[in-house]
Amino acid sequence: MASDELPATYRDLLERPLFAHLATVRPDGSPQSSVMWFGWDGSRIRMTHTKTRQKFANLAVEPRVALSIVDPEDPYRFLEVRGVVESIEDDDAQASFYRQLQARYGRDGAVSGQSVRVVITVRPESFVAVRGGKVVPG
Amino acid sequence: MASDELPATYRDLLERPLFAHLATVRPDGSPQSSVMWFGWDGSRIRMTHTKTRQKFANLAVEPRVALSIVDPEDPYRFLEVRGVVESIEDDDAQASFYRQLQARYGRDGAVSGQSVRVVITVRPESFVAVRGGKVVPG
Repeated sequence: MASDELPATYRDLLERPLFAHLATVRPDGSPQSSVMWFGWDGSRIRMTHTKTRQKFANLAVEPRVALSIVDPEDPYRFLEVRGVVESIEDDDAQASFYRQLQARYGRDGAVSGQSVRVVITVRPESFVAVRGGKVVPG
Repeated sequence: MASDELPATYRDLLERPLFAHLATVRPDGSPQSSVMWFGWDGSRIRMTHTKTRQKFANLAVEPRVALSIVDPEDPYRFLEVRGVVESIEDDDAQASFYRQLQARYGRDGAVSGQSVRVVITVRPESFVAVRGGKVVPG
C-alpha cells in the first residue's frame, strides 16, 4: 500500500505550513504522538526540537518515525510519511533553523529553549496517501 | 508530564467530532500514524476499523496506542491520549457503531467494509495536554 515516491497530488501537504503528527516509539515499546512544525526541501523533513524532551530520548533508541499530515480543507485527505531520523544536530547560536520554521508558520517572538535546540532530519522511506479512507496509488 | 486524568479544559477535544491521529507500532517495531474518527463516552475511546488492514494486525501484536487531537481553531492546543486496546469486537450486522460515528461526523452513505467492521475500544491510561509547546498541568 505504501509507495516509495511522494504522490505529486499530495506534495502540497508537505509544502504548506501544516501541522504534522509525529509518531515515535518510546524505550518501553509504546507509541507516542505529538504535533510538530516541520520543513520540507523536496527530499527531507526537518523538525525543531529540544534535547530535554521525551521525543528526543525516544529517537536515540528508535530512529524510525511516522508523520501524518491532514489537509485542513478536507480532513478525509491525508498523507502518512514513514522514515528514519538521519541526523540530529544542534541548531546554531542564533537558532536559525527554529527562526526559519517560525517564519514559515507566521509566528514571531522569543526562541524557547534556544540553548538546547536541535534540528531533526528525517529521510522519508515511504508514503501513504489516503483519500476518504482509501489509499491513493502512488 | 503526563496526567492520569483528562484535564477538564481539554475535554472538548474528545467530545467534538475532531480527527484523531492514531499512533500504533508495527510488528517490526516501527511506528505508524493514521487519521481516524473516534467516539468518546467519558471513559473510553472507540474507533471503527476493518479486520483487513495493517493497523488491525499491529494492534494484535502491540495493544498500546497513542492518539493526538488538535483544536482546529488553535493548532497550538492539542491533547495526546496514551492507552491500551481493551477489546476489538465485530460491529453488528447493521454496522451500528460505524453508523453512529458516521452521524457524529455528519456523513452519510454506504458502509465501507461492512462485513469486516470492528469496534476498537481504547482505555486511556494517561493524558498530555499541550498549549503552545508547553505541557498544561493536569
